[in-house]
Amino acid sequence: MTENSKEILTLKAQIQDCVTLVRNEKPMVPSITNTVTINFVANAQLACGGSAAMVYLPDEGEFIAKNGGAVYLNFGTLFPIYEETIPKTAKILHEIGKNYVIDPVAIGIGALRTKLLKEIKDYKPSIIRGNASEIIALASLWELNVQSVEGPKGVDSVHSVDNAREAAILLAKYTGGAVAVSGETDLVTDGKLIAYSYGGSHFMEKITGCGCSLGGVCAVYASVANPFIAALTATQHYNLAGKKAEQKVESPAYFEREFLSQLYLSTSEEIAENKFILERVE
Amino acid sequence: MTENSKEILTLKAQIQDCVTLVRNEKPMVPSITNTVTINFVANAQLACGGSAAMVYLPDEGEFIAKNGGAVYLNFGTLFPIYEETIPKTAKILHEIGKNYVIDPVAIGIGALRTKLLKEIKDYKPSIIRGNASEIIALASLWELNVQSVEGPKGVDSVHSVDNAREAAILLAKYTGGAVAVSGETDLVTDGKLIAYSYGGSHFMEKITGCGCSLGGVCAVYASVANPFIAALTATQHYNLAGKKAEQKVESPAYFEREFLSQLYLSTSEEIAENKFILERVE
Amino acid sequence: MTENSKEILTLKAQIQDCVTLVRNEKPMVPSITNTVTINFVANAQLACGGSAAMVYLPDEGEFIAKNGGAVYLNFGTLFPIYEETIPKTAKILHEIGKNYVIDPVAIGIGALRTKLLKEIKDYKPSIIRGNASEIIALASLWELNVQSVEGPKGVDSVHSVDNAREAAILLAKYTGGAVAVSGETDLVTDGKLIAYSYGGSHFMEKITGCGCSLGGVCAVYASVANPFIAALTATQHYNLAGKKAEQKVESPAYFEREFLSQLYLSTSEEIAENKFILERVE
Repeated sequence: MTENSKEILTLKAQIQDCVTLVRNEKPMVPSITNTVTINFVANAQLACGGSAAMVYLPDEGEFIAKNGGAVYLNFGTLFPIYEETIPKTAKILHEIGKNYVIDPVAIGIGALRTKLLKEIKDYKPSIIRGNASEIIALASLWELNVQSVEGPKGVDSVHSVDNAREAAILLAKYTGGAVAVSGETDLVTDGKLIAYSYGGSHFMEKITGCGCSLGGVCAVYASVANPFIAALTATQHYNLAGKKAEQKVESPAYFEREFLSQLYLSTSEEIAENKFILERVE
Repeated sequence: MTENSKEILTLKAQIQDCVTLVRNEKPMVPSITNTVTINFVANAQLACGGSAAMVYLPDEGEFIAKNGGAVYLNFGTLFPIYEETIPKTAKILHEIGKNYVIDPVAIGIGALRTKLLKEIKDYKPSIIRGNASEIIALASLWELNVQSVEGPKGVDSVHSVDNAREAAILLAKYTGGAVAVSGETDLVTDGKLIAYSYGGSHFMEKITGCGCSLGGVCAVYASVANPFIAALTATQHYNLAGKKAEQKVESPAYFEREFLSQLYLSTSEEIAENKFILERVE
Repeated sequence: MTENSKEILTLKAQIQDCVTLVRNEKPMVPSITNTVTINFVANAQLACGGSAAMVYLPDEGEFIAKNGGAVYLNFGTLFPIYEETIPKTAKILHEIGKNYVIDPVAIGIGALRTKLLKEIKDYKPSIIRGNASEIIALASLWELNVQSVEGPKGVDSVHSVDNAREAAILLAKYTGGAVAVSGETDLVTDGKLIAYSYGGSHFMEKITGCGCSLGGVCAVYASVANPFIAALTATQHYNLAGKKAEQKVESPAYFEREFLSQLYLSTSEEIAENKFILERVE
C-alpha cells in the first residue's frame, strides 16, 4: 500500500469538481430499479443534485438510454418484461458510449437474473457496484478467472471487501470502467488504481436502500465525470454522510432521514476531504 | 386579472366544507399509481383523512371504479398489464360518472404511455393534474388546438405555469372538469374560472412524490366535491403545508416528514385562507 | 376469560427467547409483498433484527422457499405472474414444512386474489395475519363453517376483532398454525389458546404499512419460533412500539419514524412484559 500525495490531491480536486458540476447541471438520471428501495434511490439522487425518472418497459429503456444523463440498472426485483428491457437498454447505452451503472443485487437467485447478468457482460457497464459477495459472484459468472468462491444466498454479503479485491480489479479491467465494492471500508477501482474510502455507519446495514441508492448516486456523478471519479465521489459522499448521520441518531429509522439530509447538506470540499487512501495495482 | 371578493368568499366556504367532509367521511380512494411514490401517495391521502388502496389488474380496476370514492390514475411507471387495466377502469368511471384524476407523468416517453393517454381522451377525466410541460403536452396530444410546443424529456417541467394557461383552459373545457397545473404559483381552472394558489416550497422539487401525491389528494377531495373545488382544495392544502414545513427544516429529507405532518395538522380554515386569487376566463 | 398466571409466565419467557434469538441469528426473511409498503416491511424486519429480500418470479419464489428463514406472502398488489409464483412458493413451503405467513390484504377484490387465496388453503400457512374483516372473509372463502358475513370493500376492516374470534379459531384449527387479528386489542390464537395483546396507537391506521409489516415481522419471528409464539411476539412488539411512539409525536408522519425506531430500541423484556391476557378455547 503506497500513498501518493500528489495523486490524492488531483483526485480530491476532481471529486470536488464532480460534486459541483452535478449541483449546477442537475442531470436527469434515469433508472430501472427494484421496488423495495425505488423511493430511496430517487430521493438520494435528488439530494445529491440530480433528477430521477424510473421506467420498466423496453421502449422506455431505449428512450432513457438515448436521453438524459447516465443510467442506473439495478437487478433487485425483476419483472418478466425485464428479459426484453434490460438487454435492449444496456445494448444502446454501450453502442452510444453513455455511462451506466449496474448493481447485481441478489446475483445467483433465479434464472432470469443469471441470464440478464450474463448478457450484460457484452455491454460492459461503466460502473459495477455491489457488496463483496456480489462482486465476486459477478466476476465468477463472467468467467474472469477469479478463484471460485461460494456465492451469496440472499442480498447480504458473506465476504469482506478484501476478498473481492481481485474480482473487482478483473471486472474493471474487463469493462474498462470502474468497480465499487461496499463494506466496512469501501474499495473503488478502475483496474489500475484502488481507492479505499473510510467512514459510513453500522446503521447503513440496518435500513434497506443504502447500497441500491449508492448505485443511483454513482449514476448521478457518472453523468458529469468518468466512471472512476464518479464511483469514488459517490462512495466518498456516502461515507461522509453516513459518518455524520450516525453521530446524531440512535436508531436506523432516524438514521435514514439524517443520512439523506447529510447527503444534501455536505459540501463538495467535505466530500473530497473524507479520508481515502490509494493503492497502485501492480 | 380581476378579484371578485364575493366569489372568493364562496370558494373559501366550499374549500372548508370539502376538507371537513373528507375528515368526517374518510372516503376510500383507490389508485393505480407508480411504484416510485406509491407509499407517499397513500400516506398523503391518509394524512388528509382519506383511505388508500392500490391495484394493477384489469378486473381490480373495474372493482375500484365501481366501489369507493374517486379514483386516481397516475401514469408514472407503467406495467404491460396497464394496456388493459387503464382503459377498462377509465371507461367504467366515465360511464358511471364517477370523478377520477389523472396525472400524465412523463408524457411522451414510450408507446404505451402515449397510447393510453390518447385513449383516455374519450373518458374525460374529471381532474387532470400535472406540471406545465405535462399539461401542454397532453393538450397537444389530444389535438386541442394548443400552440405546438416541445414536450418534456423526463419527469421535470421545462415550462412555467403561465405557458400552460391556454392548454389548461382547453383541457378543462374539453373534459368539463378541472385542471391543476403545479409550478411556483399553481393554477387551477374549470375552463371558466382560474384560481392562482400561492405558497409551497422549493423543497417540493427536491423530494420525489409531491406532484404524484397531490394527484392522489385531488382524488380524496373529489370523493366529496366537484372537480374544481376538489383540485383547488388539494392545491391550497399542499401550498399551505409546503410553506409551513419549509420554515421548520433545512433539508429535503426532513421536509418530507414535516410536509406530511402539516398535511395532517392543517385546519380546514387555514387551508381555505391560504392565499389565492381569481381570474375570470374571457 | 380466565387468566393462567403460570401459562403467562411461560409465554413471556418464550417471547423473550424469540426476540433474543432473532437478534443473535439475524435470519434472512424473504417476502413476496405489495409495492405500497414494501420498503416499510423491509425496514421493520431489519429493525427487529432480521434481514429482508423481496422477489416476484416463480423460480425465485422456489429459491426463497428453500433458502433462508420463514417466508412472507402478502396479497396486496398482485402482478399477473403471481398466478404462477404464489402457489409454487406456497406448495414448496408446505412440502418442506417451513413456516410462512400470509396476509390476505384486500380479500374479495379481483378474480386472481380469490383464486390464489383459495389455492393456498391446501398449503396451510403457518401464520395468517389480517384485520377482522380479512380473517372473517378468509374463513368464509375456505368454507370453514363460519357464519356468513359481508366482506370488506377495500383494505380497511369493517368488523371488530371480537367478531373475528370464531373465524380465527377455525382458521388456526384448520392450518394447525396461528392466526393474528389486528384491531384495537389484537387477538392471537393457535386454535386452543387465545392471547389478547394490548397497546398500539390510533396513528397506526393513519399511515400505510403497519398491518403489512406486522406480517413481515411475524415471518422474522417464525424463523426461530413456532407460529403461535412468533405471531404473539410480533404482535406484542408492535403494540409496545406503537404505544411508546404515540407518546412522542403529534402526527402520523413522525409516528412512522418513531414507531420504527421503537421497534429497534425495544428490549426483549419490554416486549414480553407488554400487557396481554389469555383465554383457553373451550
